[in-house]
Amino acid sequence: MRQSKLFGRTLREAPAEAQTPGHRLMLRSAIAKPLAAGLYTWLPLGFRVQKKIEQIIREEQNRIGAQEMEMPVLTPAETWKQTGRWDALEPITFRTKDHNGREFMVSYTHEEFVHLHAMQELQSYKQMPQIVYHFQSKGRDEARPRAGLLRVREFVMKDAYSFDVDQAGLEKSYAAEHAAYVRTFERMGLDAISVESDTGAMGGDIAHEFQVLTEVGEDRVVICTNCDYRANMERASRSARQDGFVVAENAAAPSEIPTPGATSIEQLAASLTQPPAAFLKTLLLRDTKGTVVAVVLPGDRDVNEAKLRKILGTSDVKFANAADFVAAGGVPGFIGPVGLKVRTLVDRSVDGRAYIAGANKKDLHLRDVVSGRDFKGESIDAHDVREGDFCPKCGTGTLEIKRGVEVGNIFAYGTYYSDKMNATFLAEDGTRQPFVGGSYGIGVGRAVQTIIETHHDDKGIVWPPQVAPYQVHLLALPVNDDPVRSKAEGLLAELEHRGVEVLYDDRDESAGVKFADADLLGIPLRVTVSKRNLKENAAELKLRSASESELVPLDEAGERIAETVASWPR
Amino acid sequence: MRQSKLFGRTLREAPAEAQTPGHRLMLRSAIAKPLAAGLYTWLPLGFRVQKKIEQIIREEQNRIGAQEMEMPVLTPAETWKQTGRWDALEPITFRTKDHNGREFMVSYTHEEFVHLHAMQELQSYKQMPQIVYHFQSKGRDEARPRAGLLRVREFVMKDAYSFDVDQAGLEKSYAAEHAAYVRTFERMGLDAISVESDTGAMGGDIAHEFQVLTEVGEDRVVICTNCDYRANMERASRSARQDGFVVAENAAAPSEIPTPGATSIEQLAASLTQPPAAFLKTLLLRDTKGTVVAVVLPGDRDVNEAKLRKILGTSDVKFANAADFVAAGGVPGFIGPVGLKVRTLVDRSVDGRAYIAGANKKDLHLRDVVSGRDFKGESIDAHDVREGDFCPKCGTGTLEIKRGVEVGNIFAYGTYYSDKMNATFLAEDGTRQPFVGGSYGIGVGRAVQTIIETHHDDKGIVWPPQVAPYQVHLLALPVNDDPVRSKAEGLLAELEHRGVEVLYDDRDESAGVKFADADLLGIPLRVTVSKRNLKENAAELKLRSASESELVPLDEAGERIAETVASWPR
Repeated sequence: MRQSKLFGRTLREAPAEAQTPGHRLMLRSAIAKPLAAGLYTWLPLGFRVQKKIEQIIREEQNRIGAQEMEMPVLTPAETWKQTGRWDALEPITFRTKDHNGREFMVSYTHEEFVHLHAMQELQSYKQMPQIVYHFQSKGRDEARPRAGLLRVREFVMKDAYSFDVDQAGLEKSYAAEHAAYVRTFERMGLDAISVESDTGAMGGDIAHEFQVLTEVGEDRVVICTNCDYRANMERASRSARQDGFVVAENAAAPSEIPTPGATSIEQLAASLTQPPAAFLKTLLLRDTKGTVVAVVLPGDRDVNEAKLRKILGTSDVKFANAADFVAAGGVPGFIGPVGLKVRTLVDRSVDGRAYIAGANKKDLHLRDVVSGRDFKGESIDAHDVREGDFCPKCGTGTLEIKRGVEVGNIFAYGTYYSDKMNATFLAEDGTRQPFVGGSYGIGVGRAVQTIIETHHDDKGIVWPPQVAPYQVHLLALPVNDDPVRSKAEGLLAELEHRGVEVLYDDRDESAGVKFADADLLGIPLRVTVSKRNLKENAAELKLRSASESELVPLDEAGERIAETVASWPR
Repeated sequence: MRQSKLFGRTLREAPAEAQTPGHRLMLRSAIAKPLAAGLYTWLPLGFRVQKKIEQIIREEQNRIGAQEMEMPVLTPAETWKQTGRWDALEPITFRTKDHNGREFMVSYTHEEFVHLHAMQELQSYKQMPQIVYHFQSKGRDEARPRAGLLRVREFVMKDAYSFDVDQAGLEKSYAAEHAAYVRTFERMGLDAISVESDTGAMGGDIAHEFQVLTEVGEDRVVICTNCDYRANMERASRSARQDGFVVAENAAAPSEIPTPGATSIEQLAASLTQPPAAFLKTLLLRDTKGTVVAVVLPGDRDVNEAKLRKILGTSDVKFANAADFVAAGGVPGFIGPVGLKVRTLVDRSVDGRAYIAGANKKDLHLRDVVSGRDFKGESIDAHDVREGDFCPKCGTGTLEIKRGVEVGNIFAYGTYYSDKMNATFLAEDGTRQPFVGGSYGIGVGRAVQTIIETHHDDKGIVWPPQVAPYQVHLLALPVNDDPVRSKAEGLLAELEHRGVEVLYDDRDESAGVKFADADLLGIPLRVTVSKRNLKENAAELKLRSASESELVPLDEAGERIAETVASWPR
């Protein structure tokens, strides 16, 4: 490819709106450009990277026996309504109507639709296990598209779907996809770790995210310093040894203390000169169906909403309203678990000590409130995890919290969809049984930018060879010198004949501009044919990832370059 | 690929709604299945065909130097509004709004957006000529999706866009794409002819469609029996030698004849016992802006709306309303060109004879109406073309009208978009000049089904080898016979090692079912390893397109099959 004809122009400066190093480099190197907030076009260089990433994903899916297909972007509302996701996904999706008023969603994901096909195509247990996948554009109405391709409103996702006859089969398919994901990210040069995650809108119970740890990530990942425990913040837990280790002996009966105007833990801690952990925090909350619960936590802990939503089986949790407080017998700002007339959930971090808690009377709290003695509730795990907590797996390591970009996620949802859609197959025993399934996603564009975020220096991108837009960047300096151009184009022809992918900088630009652009574009091997090198009948070879260059005799250059390229991982 | 695990089940009978032979075969062979009217999923077999077609298109685009990229599906309204197509395309497109009320179109085509990119990436005349292309899903809110993949509401199109510095450059790019299209369709086994066509919603003046002639097509193509003239009905013309060959000499002045209640040419012809060609047909019409015109044609000809829309520069033409008739001085049913107070367009088929025309008075017509003497108007070409008309190119051949499927279209629109969008580049003379462009589309799904429509027999599909889902269909009969299975799987391994694409029918089904499915799926070479053939230590080879089969010694079969496959066109 001649760079003079490349559709895509390098920029000296990134546009002011670029938010991260990868975002800046992506725009400067004309990998992708926005048409509107969160809507990106792959320019030819970026398109090549995207296709290489797709191909790695495809090969690893095919290796585990998955079959490629393609479902449409527009998906009919009726099917989404069968599983209740038409309404649940409303806030984050794009919808459209045809001229007859029939509604469609710009596909967010395809669980419902692949189940429709499975019902038609998979009649018998003999046809399973099955995994199918496609690469298809997804729409997400993100309120805040962010940092280029990291959070967009349209992106191509590889989504795979497994169908098994039972839970054991699902576990095998899930493990096969997990292993495929490990290989996939490794091959594309991403150091992704798998972490336990919340299942969110996908349903089911088991899920993992693949996270690449980087400061530009917006997810928080909890990692044990001692063992292999890793979880998303929305799922993370801590060791039970931190819970229930204080027991109040012979505590007095609860007694009122005046706390005029002190409606927050901070105010109470200050006015009573006690640490936040000496208090109980009581939250009165309501789910999407209007059911009200009280959640009791130590004063120094916050509720983890994702964990709580899962416990309550709801998609959203809000603060209760004034009428809810009246019905429960609580007073806003002075609510406490003693005497409360509502379902009460007690976080397991609440131990046996004598706490200070709201008295359910204005301007009053109670001292000497003991859980189990003065109030009772269901024990739950709904507190947030903090840096330094003990690991729930090994019990001895402490937890660190890091930022990460989620580059893939996998869900074992079981019969979540097949139950709702009555999607069944003929089992070996002659009965009809629901498909047991999982889904497995990778966003292609986010992977591309995460590679840039984690593979660059201050001059530009440093592509891992296996996903670079071209393998070799051939520079002619200057291009209007006949011997230089002639030798450079001879080498170009030889390399292309050998199957090497070459971007040939044939522009009439200075050496400074060309070297700077080569560093910016980050193609793994730079080859310079220049007037100076020609005096020694040599070409200069320099790996983008190395600081040293090497002069190679011109008549050996083609072979040396081809050998170098062949030695790279695929 | 083992057929027992194929996601996609053959059907003995097509669903009742299937409308054409190709539609029936496409559904029966699990190439694609609908999720809703006009929304199709490629199942794995069809996905492979689609990818092969994409690859042929890609190779031929790359051969002419086009660069692949990818623009998004969702496109912002603001840009469409710059060219006026936000409103113009409303009836046929899907729109959506984000949660902030910003509007987007599910992309119908990408001229506007590729111009936005060109403005950023192409600064100078030195960067041209340029052609970029992408494969991307398009939405079309077709009121009547039809015949499977022939007319759908979402499909992947390859759309290419050329950018040149001037009209001469555009003509070269257009010619290069035209040649690429000829090769593309030939390689995929389609006998497509290029025909002159109307530019419709794309703007500009020059356009061609690639049409495959078949009875299932819904387009009508006009073809000369003598020369190479070929045009779409919307564009077709006829020889001028048919026009103006009758001249009324010494015709009397127009005089009224009573024609009570005779408001149509048919009624007049019957009551006055004259042929329809003896009358003038006068139509009072209004365009989208409310401008009213009268169009005068011979009584035996209809107006060609596409040609008229182009003449008027409007996207739609409707019959005038009662107030328009009053303003023009016409009477509905008795309108005629004499004395009409409105812009009058006279089709060039109207000759110098003395016609009978409406008198613009109720229940009256005029006889002896001579064009040019009794009324005047602008001469236009807006009549329809009929079978048997003389060719406008050679003048001697007669025209035939055939049905066709449009599998591709190309448009040379020039500065239609760059003028409206102020999309300019720095020209060699230092001035800023508008890009001169064209666009070039192929619908992938329609190509797949058109191949089926034109390549089948009564038993099933007969794929051209270069686009077949697999090259070889290997049948084990019966699969539960150990020697048969062992020999078949040995041959399978050898063929896959040789790079041959094999679908291996390992299902526990009868010979009848397997042979019928092989004929239905239409894979070019069927190879049968059976108990009977094993007695002769042979495999049976049969081309789907041939009636004879051949026994080949088992130990030579792998090589023979690989040679056969290698001999096929790519």
